[in-house]
Amino acid sequence: MRRQFRDLSTPAAARETIASLDLTPDSETVPLSDARGRVLAERIDAGMDVPGFDRASMDGYAVRARDTFGADEADPVTLELVGEVHAGAEPDVEVDPGTAVEISTGAVMPPGADAVVIVERTEERDDSLVVYKSVAPGDSVMPAGTDIAAGARALGPGTRLTPREIGLLSALGIDEVPVRGAPVVGIVSTGDELVRPGEELRPEAGQIYDVNTYTIAAGVEEAGGVPKLYPHAGDDYDEMERLLRQAADECDLVLSSGSTSASAVDVIYRVVEERGELLLHGVSVKPGKPMLVGTLGEGSAYIGLPGYPVSALTIFRTFAAPAIRSAAGLPEPQTATVEGSMAVRERYAEGRTRLMPVGLVIGGTPSPRQTQSDGAGEMLVYPVDKGSGATTSLVEADGVVEIPADVEYLAEGESVTVQLFSPDVRPPELLGVGEDDPALSRLLDRVPTPRYLAFGSREGIRRLRDGIPDVAVVAGETHGDVDVDAVELGSWTREWGLVVPAGNPDGVTGLEELVDEDLRFVNRDTNSGLRTELGDAIAALAEARGTTRHELVDEIEGFDHGAKAFESPARAVRSGRAAVGLGLRETADSLGLDFVSLGEQPVRVLANSARTEKPSVRSFGDVLAESDDIFDALTGFEKVRTRR
Amino acid sequence: MRRQFRDLSTPAAARETIASLDLTPDSETVPLSDARGRVLAERIDAGMDVPGFDRASMDGYAVRARDTFGADEADPVTLELVGEVHAGAEPDVEVDPGTAVEISTGAVMPPGADAVVIVERTEERDDSLVVYKSVAPGDSVMPAGTDIAAGARALGPGTRLTPREIGLLSALGIDEVPVRGAPVVGIVSTGDELVRPGEELRPEAGQIYDVNTYTIAAGVEEAGGVPKLYPHAGDDYDEMERLLRQAADECDLVLSSGSTSASAVDVIYRVVEERGELLLHGVSVKPGKPMLVGTLGEGSAYIGLPGYPVSALTIFRTFAAPAIRSAAGLPEPQTATVEGSMAVRERYAEGRTRLMPVGLVIGGTPSPRQTQSDGAGEMLVYPVDKGSGATTSLVEADGVVEIPADVEYLAEGESVTVQLFSPDVRPPELLGVGEDDPALSRLLDRVPTPRYLAFGSREGIRRLRDGIPDVAVVAGETHGDVDVDAVELGSWTREWGLVVPAGNPDGVTGLEELVDEDLRFVNRDTNSGLRTELGDAIAALAEARGTTRHELVDEIEGFDHGAKAFESPARAVRSGRAAVGLGLRETADSLGLDFVSLGEQPVRVLANSARTEKPSVRSFGDVLAESDDIFDALTGFEKVRTRR
Repeated sequence: MRRQFRDLSTPAAARETIASLDLTPDSETVPLSDARGRVLAERIDAGMDVPGFDRASMDGYAVRARDTFGADEADPVTLELVGEVHAGAEPDVEVDPGTAVEISTGAVMPPGADAVVIVERTEERDDSLVVYKSVAPGDSVMPAGTDIAAGARALGPGTRLTPREIGLLSALGIDEVPVRGAPVVGIVSTGDELVRPGEELRPEAGQIYDVNTYTIAAGVEEAGGVPKLYPHAGDDYDEMERLLRQAADECDLVLSSGSTSASAVDVIYRVVEERGELLLHGVSVKPGKPMLVGTLGEGSAYIGLPGYPVSALTIFRTFAAPAIRSAAGLPEPQTATVEGSMAVRERYAEGRTRLMPVGLVIGGTPSPRQTQSDGAGEMLVYPVDKGSGATTSLVEADGVVEIPADVEYLAEGESVTVQLFSPDVRPPELLGVGEDDPALSRLLDRVPTPRYLAFGSREGIRRLRDGIPDVAVVAGETHGDVDVDAVELGSWTREWGLVVPAGNPDGVTGLEELVDEDLRFVNRDTNSGLRTELGDAIAALAEARGTTRHELVDEIEGFDHGAKAFESPARAVRSGRAAVGLGLRETADSLGLDFVSLGEQPVRVLANSARTEKPSVRSFGDVLAESDDIFDALTGFEKVRTRR
Repeated sequence: MRRQFRDLSTPAAARETIASLDLTPDSETVPLSDARGRVLAERIDAGMDVPGFDRASMDGYAVRARDTFGADEADPVTLELVGEVHAGAEPDVEVDPGTAVEISTGAVMPPGADAVVIVERTEERDDSLVVYKSVAPGDSVMPAGTDIAAGARALGPGTRLTPREIGLLSALGIDEVPVRGAPVVGIVSTGDELVRPGEELRPEAGQIYDVNTYTIAAGVEEAGGVPKLYPHAGDDYDEMERLLRQAADECDLVLSSGSTSASAVDVIYRVVEERGELLLHGVSVKPGKPMLVGTLGEGSAYIGLPGYPVSALTIFRTFAAPAIRSAAGLPEPQTATVEGSMAVRERYAEGRTRLMPVGLVIGGTPSPRQTQSDGAGEMLVYPVDKGSGATTSLVEADGVVEIPADVEYLAEGESVTVQLFSPDVRPPELLGVGEDDPALSRLLDRVPTPRYLAFGSREGIRRLRDGIPDVAVVAGETHGDVDVDAVELGSWTREWGLVVPAGNPDGVTGLEELVDEDLRFVNRDTNSGLRTELGDAIAALAEARGTTRHELVDEIEGFDHGAKAFESPARAVRSGRAAVGLGLRETADSLGLDFVSLGEQPVRVLANSARTEKPSVRSFGDVLAESDDIFDALTGFEKVRTRR
């Protein structure tokens, strides 16, 4: 019996429902050495005086203060030197009237003494001490309990233990600490098609690696919980049911992420209904509509996350992580938001709250409204929307902008608040968009914290025109970059052509065989500069043959099907899925394939002209200027033409 | 042979010297599940296409797009339904012209199909499918490699792994990650007088608990290092030398904190000189002058920290932690500073840079210069200076203000930048100063993140007059609070008197025996409201006897020696060190001692009148208003008079 929930909950109602769950585990006791980051479960009062004795706070001589009254440089007093006390030793001497005892910092004041004369104001002469200064009782002495006294409130419940609190606990001799328990969060993987990373994948059977299990586990750790991973039951629903029950017994909270299989959903409903209660089904937020919240009986709660990784992590962060932090006693992280302005207009009207993943980049125009610590310019915010099925948008976004259900669009330049994925997130120092290229991959390794979106040369030009990236990387002719306001930072050339199996079994010598023979081909996508170059070469061949480009293209099996990255066509050749692939000599060499050269093309790095003085752009320019050596050393065959 | 370094290094020179040390450990490979927070050692390129197959992105029917051309609601096309494909299964059917195959989200597109018609735009009739919408090739299909394609740059070297990067690595099937090694930092404890927490302490022999070992170990963890604790060698210098050599072999960096013993210093010099080089001795900074920096031969460095905990942690944070973070590949933490204004004038002129520990409190007067997220008021900064021998100043400070060597004083109201101890640090919500009291300790447990400085009633009044705390707690008469601008939040009474051993062996009945008999007494310090109350009672007795207060006080052995906290005198009685102690009935009861009542005194909570609307002050007021019940439940004998 599947309960029907007609209406989606509002985000606020979902937060309230989750806050009503009791995830708080029992307190526990941990050794002091494991206590960092934990939260005190109860107040700690001092059980002893610190220091535990009247302690000399300077090197000098322990005396009776009244014996020194009136002493000065002109009229010193002389005392009998009767012994010494060192730190960590029990005094074996008393200070009687008229006597003094040598004492070192940290040592116990000997009986009878009530002050220390510092060594600089004394002089030893044989067995006597000349004192040139009068001291008062208590001078240079730290009385027992001065730091903290027995019975005093040392640390309150709820205190998060940092090195400083650990210092105070050490001083009190405490080597075990009562702390809030860390909630144990079970992660149950559902989905027939999922395979754990490290195991063998059969893509032809629609298998994909399980992204959510490790992502959510890391999120649980970050929120102060202890993730507990359960084995993946695949399509064994009885086993999945058994694992869910086991997780409910063992954990404070059980998480699963959506399955596309109705059978899996049925199992979850059955276990929730039987042991507890379903409290919420679906929330009016994008991404993430399919969320379940319920209880699993005594002391265990359940949250069902959506299946797509971006949706799952977004819903986890927005709804589950705060509940885990609260159960662990941890505060919400501070300053996890940043203000910025939209780099482009973004339309949206779906009638539910949208948590829009966005990337950040520091623009070239300083804005008086913002105070960037580096003074570089205003914070620009651009939407990252590759569909929630894409895992790359996880790393291409820095946070989300929450757009209320009734907002239809955000204007370019509109101010928005970005909820950062974590307080540590900062904008990449360099944002690039454009062609993918193996030499570029290596060059980027030499730039601190770059973000490079390999969307192809055309998209690089388009986004540069919108003023988003710091640099665009463009391979070959771009057919339309004339109106882009950019400065060339540097460039290199690459040899492009046809990748064929080792030994070139089909005897390919150039475009002719591709057009005239029945060879399965893998092309690149239309944004790629390689694809444009190939199109131009086919057009030239068509002209030579007195026919049209379209006619020739029609003869090539697979021409319209473009792969997204530079190695993909070559890999199709290597795996036997194709006879010819569009690619680079470097790729053919590295994969052990043969190569039929069709020419060279320049790869140019174009800087946003408003940001040529941005430090990361300048330093990328330096990297390009130095790259002659790099290319020589690393690849041996790329000819570099760097122009600045 | 001890090398002489005449001049102290500047802080900048010390930073440079430490930056020149090579602490960077070898890279290592860790399982994905342990990779959170680590830093990638090398670039990760995608080794496969994600998804690995052309994937349906909606539930519906896989078709040949050209079969649907022209279809709409008025003029649908009908296709033959020839099978189905589910997620995680290999298609066992082809889509020939005129046919369709049912497909679920995430499933492999069957051969022949190039688009998906979403289920909402179709209708099944017997074995055929009616399609009400024309689709284009690629509609509702995510082609192989769309998310990330084989060969593409996935993550660059130096990337810190958060849940999001772990998601992308999972998608690529990577279950082991090459990461920067975490530097191993050895901590060698020196100092004859130190005892590890948990072990038995002999205060009479000048022993104290070892604070620095665990504090610095926690600091090392926080900076991304792996602390390695070595056993404490005490005064066995041969063993200490052996441990230092072992640590130099096993660690990237060895830390010790200052010893007061010349022999220990000699051992350190010997090992540094023999295996490496002493690079720096002493830095011109307070606290922290006695710092050593050197090498210990191949791949190991040495930093000697000062001995006092506040100095040791300050020097560690300022000089050692940045080097550890850099070796681990971690960025400096962000926004670890806050702007504020000095609550009081602070003089300083010692000719070296001062890292002044300070506390923070949000004041009552909102300042236009600051943007507090809660809008409560400006950030006030007050010095915390209990001497660097005090461990409590570790937890009473929130950060340090760096004062250049040539600054003589900071004026009240002067703007300063506070370097927070960590980015998580925030000002306590409630700052109180005043009397210590067991009921107050419990009340404070009910206030979120309070900081209470138990400096006594007099000091509470003094600081309230300076405008620093939110509340002052005052016991009994204060002799001079008339000119303080404060509002009483609430109060209770406590029974005070003389604590005597169980069975009252000396037959104490009141002050008379204390004055007339030869009983060793332990008093409280002069800031305590109990001490004032006792003074007044003695004055009354003197008047009754026709003598002076001074005469009577002189008869009491130990009257001038005041303990800092409310339990200390009673503990002295329990341990036999005294016959009578000044204290509270509650303390006597809890320690199993007898009690001779001398009266009741009120304990009043006075709020800073500029901050009565501060949320924490209001909520403390609520706690006090509810406290009748609390006192009844918790103690059973405290009479509460709450006035608001």
